[in-house]
Amino acid sequence: MPKPSKRLPSKSKKELAVILTSGGMDSCVTAAIAAQSYELAMLHLNYGQKTERREEKAFRDICKFFRIPPNRQLISHIDHLKKIGGSSLTDHAIEVTKANLENKKVPTSYVPFRNSHILAIAVSWAEVIGARKIFIGAVEEDSSGYPDCREEFFRAFNKVIALGTRPDTTLEIITPIIHMNKSEIVKKGVELKAPLHLTWSCYKNETKACGVCDSCALRLRGFQSAGVDDPIRYDKLIQYH
Amino acid sequence: MPKPSKRLPSKSKKELAVILTSGGMDSCVTAAIAAQSYELAMLHLNYGQKTERREEKAFRDICKFFRIPPNRQLISHIDHLKKIGGSSLTDHAIEVTKANLENKKVPTSYVPFRNSHILAIAVSWAEVIGARKIFIGAVEEDSSGYPDCREEFFRAFNKVIALGTRPDTTLEIITPIIHMNKSEIVKKGVELKAPLHLTWSCYKNETKACGVCDSCALRLRGFQSAGVDDPIRYDKLIQYH
Repeated sequence: MPKPSKRLPSKSKKELAVILTSGGMDSCVTAAIAAQSYELAMLHLNYGQKTERREEKAFRDICKFFRIPPNRQLISHIDHLKKIGGSSLTDHAIEVTKANLENKKVPTSYVPFRNSHILAIAVSWAEVIGARKIFIGAVEEDSSGYPDCREEFFRAFNKVIALGTRPDTTLEIITPIIHMNKSEIVKKGVELKAPLHLTWSCYKNETKACGVCDSCALRLRGFQSAGVDDPIRYDKLIQYH
Repeated sequence: MPKPSKRLPSKSKKELAVILTSGGMDSCVTAAIAAQSYELAMLHLNYGQKTERREEKAFRDICKFFRIPPNRQLISHIDHLKKIGGSSLTDHAIEVTKANLENKKVPTSYVPFRNSHILAIAVSWAEVIGARKIFIGAVEEDSSGYPDCREEFFRAFNKVIALGTRPDTTLEIITPIIHMNKSEIVKKGVELKAPLHLTWSCYKNETKACGVCDSCALRLRGFQSAGVDDPIRYDKLIQYH
């Protein structure tokens, strides 16, 4: 059995880690945490979400900030999540609703089983380039209530990785901010000098963030309770509690 | 929370099941088994494999045979497995080797973590259209030794599905032929009048099957030991033991 031919050499003594980088704040802070101990390989997924182009720009800006060479950047395009629909993020027939941060139900922005798609890509890539960890900036406690953002989901996925890859592959999902709230994530980002000004979180707009969708609301509440100014521009700046 | 808008009505009293349909013999027999108890929705994945067009043709022919309406057919195209490489099926730098049916190592045709990609798509689709089962024609015992074809892999994936989908989603992977050998699969296909003449298994060619790659060798050995003529045409017809 030949060794995978695309194993990337590490320039330092650090091991390689794949970082799932949506272009949002959480994955940016996660990348900053991972960069303390690993060489980064950054993965981005375009799945037909409404703000796809703006998120890809944020991804490229963040890669530039972290000086990621081209062979450690991967942008994937998939069309089936849009074809399948069933989410306000991918289906124009379903509106991106205003945030209701008290609502504990699965919101309309839930993209069915999305994190499994991006994790599958990350695992395939990590296995071939010889990375040992996959970092994902999922947040369980202070999040929108997506089922595939919970720690037990990632624990179960780690088992699938162990069983579904080569016997000599050692690969594990790491979720460093899963139990932080958004305020702690903002503070951690500021502490590590993560490029929060380059990130994009809004589900609805691509120029000025709307300020009222689930993602904007959670982000703004985080900045406000951390006592930090959000460096990006908003259409509506609301005070959240 | 609005109900998923794309739930498909079932014409009969049967529940809906998503069938992973590569175009090969195993998935075709699996579809015939599922058709006894379920309405079928058929999913096919083009991932840049060398015989992509031929497999898609087989998929379409099989859908026609089973009279699957267009809204119950989904063909996905992904580009990342080809970009990632590391397999003789997707990477032109790696040759499709001749079969060595005694070799118990992971062969060069292993596409890193491929079944997770197709399962993720199946789960997202099944959740939106309201299917209750996902059928996959994976074979553990008499197979090429891919880690993601083992029963314990699917058992672990079922846990990921339960944790990563909506609380009211009930969805489960079914592997009806996982412990059959290829000879039993051929016999089951003949018994159920599965359209084996429409299937394509060869990893290498798109006109006449090569007869010597892993997939051809396993298929031919199955037909030969079942005492059944393989209805498709081969470049080389070898006797396997």
